[in-house]
Amino acid sequence: MKKIFIIGAGRSSATLIRYLEEQAPTYGWEITVGDQDINLVKEKISPPTRALVFDVFDEQQRDLEIEQADIVVSMLPARLHQVVALACLKFGKSLLTASYVSDELNDLDAEVKAKGLLFLNEMGVDPGIDHMSAMRLIDRVKHEGHAITDFESFTGGLVAPESDNNPWNYKFTWNPRNVVVAGQGGPAKFLQEGKYKYIPYNRLFRRTEVIDIEGFGKFEGYANRDSLKYIDKYNLQGVPTVYRGTLRRPGYCRAWDIFVQLGATDDTYFMENTENMTYKEFINSFLYYAEAAVRLKLYHYMHIDQDSDIIDKLEYLELFSDKKIGLKRATPAQILEHILSEKWKMEPDDKDMVVMWHKLLYKKNGDSDPVKMTSSMVVLGEDSVHTAMSKTVGLPLAIATKMVMTGQIALTGVHIPNRKEIYEPVLNELENYGITFVEKEG
Amino acid sequence: MKKIFIIGAGRSSATLIRYLEEQAPTYGWEITVGDQDINLVKEKISPPTRALVFDVFDEQQRDLEIEQADIVVSMLPARLHQVVALACLKFGKSLLTASYVSDELNDLDAEVKAKGLLFLNEMGVDPGIDHMSAMRLIDRVKHEGHAITDFESFTGGLVAPESDNNPWNYKFTWNPRNVVVAGQGGPAKFLQEGKYKYIPYNRLFRRTEVIDIEGFGKFEGYANRDSLKYIDKYNLQGVPTVYRGTLRRPGYCRAWDIFVQLGATDDTYFMENTENMTYKEFINSFLYYAEAAVRLKLYHYMHIDQDSDIIDKLEYLELFSDKKIGLKRATPAQILEHILSEKWKMEPDDKDMVVMWHKLLYKKNGDSDPVKMTSSMVVLGEDSVHTAMSKTVGLPLAIATKMVMTGQIALTGVHIPNRKEIYEPVLNELENYGITFVEKEG
Repeated sequence: MKKIFIIGAGRSSATLIRYLEEQAPTYGWEITVGDQDINLVKEKISPPTRALVFDVFDEQQRDLEIEQADIVVSMLPARLHQVVALACLKFGKSLLTASYVSDELNDLDAEVKAKGLLFLNEMGVDPGIDHMSAMRLIDRVKHEGHAITDFESFTGGLVAPESDNNPWNYKFTWNPRNVVVAGQGGPAKFLQEGKYKYIPYNRLFRRTEVIDIEGFGKFEGYANRDSLKYIDKYNLQGVPTVYRGTLRRPGYCRAWDIFVQLGATDDTYFMENTENMTYKEFINSFLYYAEAAVRLKLYHYMHIDQDSDIIDKLEYLELFSDKKIGLKRATPAQILEHILSEKWKMEPDDKDMVVMWHKLLYKKNGDSDPVKMTSSMVVLGEDSVHTAMSKTVGLPLAIATKMVMTGQIALTGVHIPNRKEIYEPVLNELENYGITFVEKEG
Repeated sequence: MKKIFIIGAGRSSATLIRYLEEQAPTYGWEITVGDQDINLVKEKISPPTRALVFDVFDEQQRDLEIEQADIVVSMLPARLHQVVALACLKFGKSLLTASYVSDELNDLDAEVKAKGLLFLNEMGVDPGIDHMSAMRLIDRVKHEGHAITDFESFTGGLVAPESDNNPWNYKFTWNPRNVVVAGQGGPAKFLQEGKYKYIPYNRLFRRTEVIDIEGFGKFEGYANRDSLKYIDKYNLQGVPTVYRGTLRRPGYCRAWDIFVQLGATDDTYFMENTENMTYKEFINSFLYYAEAAVRLKLYHYMHIDQDSDIIDKLEYLELFSDKKIGLKRATPAQILEHILSEKWKMEPDDKDMVVMWHKLLYKKNGDSDPVKMTSSMVVLGEDSVHTAMSKTVGLPLAIATKMVMTGQIALTGVHIPNRKEIYEPVLNELENYGITFVEKEG
């Protein structure tokens, strides 16, 4: 096993590539990085890594390159993994990704197993480190013979405190579109004290929890899509509370909810006349009456008091200005993303931060009051290339790639890293890179 | 032209059938009514009308019956019209329906024209009488040389005042599912004083207008899906305000919004354990925490004051009771429909009411202040068979059928009744049946 083929050289590939290049001499690896945009590749690689203009839809090229590789790492957008997976199956190559396993990928499990291959997914940060660190905690507490009564887990990609200088305490450190449409497409589902709970999108950002992480202050968490799925994935059958969420700085969600309530995050229809629309007209199109007092109408409509911190956040975005949007045919979500992208842009010197926090309540044998245990991880970006996001996505993937290459993982089939044989060595090695968890009991 | 084939003998077919049977001797018509459920047919017809067990998906039977007919009236659910339409095209028969024209039906226009046929749709009440009465007003005001500045139109299927005895002032006089999911699937779009306005579902029931109809009291209207479509349909290009809505009694929308906010109208996912769920547990699944004070939690979550009229409405539904739902695998919307169906059921002696209201502002030559004109229709049900809904849906359709049979409408192609040659005679004849509009100016 010598040849590693990395497909996709976007922002989160930087640390993945650096790690594999560092280890390459030791193991005699040959690395190829392919992307449609060759400049993205060139920025990130050093010799002797091979750079390749690669189009995943060019079947001939795809087959040729995958056939030549010993292992494939796909950093493409999630919807493009399947075409890579089918080629990997065809040529008998194992595949690693940092994305959620799709149903159609899962359906390949038997074939992947039959060929003695491993398709290891959800091997980044969220999903990835969240699974591994949660499973380590859960397995340990269970192994000690305790009964878990509550499992909660939150992750957030945020701006580092030193670069946190806008009233939203937020910048785009990741795909902006995903931030704008976050929470859409079905209710958040979770289990709370034995009861199934459902939060519709229009209440999602008003049902937050506050979390305090020593040295980093307060965060607020809102519920992630379907926590119920994790009951089986994490072996939490019978645990009364299972809740997963996303972290923001306090106050973000309440202000973001204004956009949700207005309908400004809707990505399902095109607005009229967006090209000549101003910021103020964009907001006005969600308000009653046609008259010009847009600021006041919004405050009245959304019950925003004149001393509310939300005002500062909205004004920061220049929402009541005559600035032109200038997008030709756009959905509300696209316009909002456009407005936010200017204001929430990471500057060259800005650093990002990835925060993860787990909470476990468990009962020691016989005790009626549960013990509380929290485990938190905070990773800061090094610079604008080796961001916290790039590190926490790329390193687990890179370590797993090494483990598959060296035969340390002998598993076959379609998997996520919820087994000890994966999470233990990966989490241990991540510690060498400053990706560590701080546990607190009580 | 002798043979009329009516497909579908559901609730709204009663008055249609009665009208055509009354006119049959005069014109020598032979009427056939087909439905999967022969009892529905038998309840509604008198000799010599022929009753038929009819399955629209039985191609042989469908072809046979449509080939024998001279004209087809489809009262099937809207999604089933296309299969009837294609058979009508095949055998060269004209078709009438009370449903919205689908895109695929519209696509048949050229073929329908080429064969000299008429597919006349939206020939019921809403859509139907709304188009006709609006067009009559619009055409008249334009013909008089005035400039329209505002067009608003509202329709509601409600319970008659004499049968209005629950705190919602509402009962199901029509398809309950449509009431529960009303407003979903995209924002309401309209034009207000020259500005495009969009209301997302989560604000729809809080953006109501109050309408007063002499002798019948107050109603509130919320915006209907896409009013912008009617700019072209009604020839309202350049008119600054175009708004269509749905009528309820005052207070309904504000209380209904509680269900919207909870997520209880969501029809996109199945809830867990619905079979053994109680009404109270249903509500609790949308609330924070697991504890039992469901009533109080809801009031707190939704800011319902203890003297609010909403309380009476919610209590009337027994939402905080331990009554079992008993549905095996159900979405929130299905459960809510189940709960409401018991409480909003029309009793045998109950009568329904269809209300329609148009408002026009227009400027007489030179005047700067517009003149206001309203036109309202209130139709009451006769009994539980010849309901207001059955009359207002069935009569326009029946009259149009007669007009096509007698050659009074010579139009070909796919149409809706927005032309004078249709609306004028239909509206005139509707007056004989008590379906009249009261106009008020100023």
